[in-house]
Amino acid sequence: MSKPVVTIEYCPKCGWLLRAAYLAQELLTTFQEELGGVLIKPAEINGRFSITVDDQLVFDRKQQGRFPETKELKQLVRDVACPDKPLGHSDKPGA
Amino acid sequence: MSKPVVTIEYCPKCGWLLRAAYLAQELLTTFQEELGGVLIKPAEINGRFSITVDDQLVFDRKQQGRFPETKELKQLVRDVACPDKPLGHSDKPGA
Repeated sequence: MSKPVVTIEYCPKCGWLLRAAYLAQELLTTFQEELGGVLIKPAEINGRFSITVDDQLVFDRKQQGRFPETKELKQLVRDVACPDKPLGHSDKPGA
Repeated sequence: MSKPVVTIEYCPKCGWLLRAAYLAQELLTTFQEELGGVLIKPAEINGRFSITVDDQLVFDRKQQGRFPETKELKQLVRDVACPDKPLGHSDKPGA
């Protein structure tokens, strides 16, 4: 079975490439062994910033009304990609 | 027809994530309209740093004995993904 791929879709007109690339690096640092990769994808829909694990949507800016926090995103990705992996201090609510 | 996707495969043990992420951002800045995305992919082969456009290999560190220059990589990706696109000063040999 191939490893899950995270897709970060960002609105280039909004200037969100840097956020997308930063989060990609956070995910690849934490999930180096578990992920098949992170796809950084320019969106064709204005204002879009969404994150999927394979085909499963885990965060959508328009639904949430905000961007994901790094710790939150790692938990969301972990829950789908590798639910048994502990995230250390990123698992603690106040960390 | 879907837009071409660039894959940058890097050896995580060699610490090449930052190079891969930097080049991904360069490509997405230059080819915002032309690419379907850039996939940053941890390699399972030690020492690997390779770049493909869809399934076509355009650069391989082991074959070349070096990393790609940014300008060179943009030309290689352009030649496959959108051969008619001018790259401005990145097209001049000495630029």
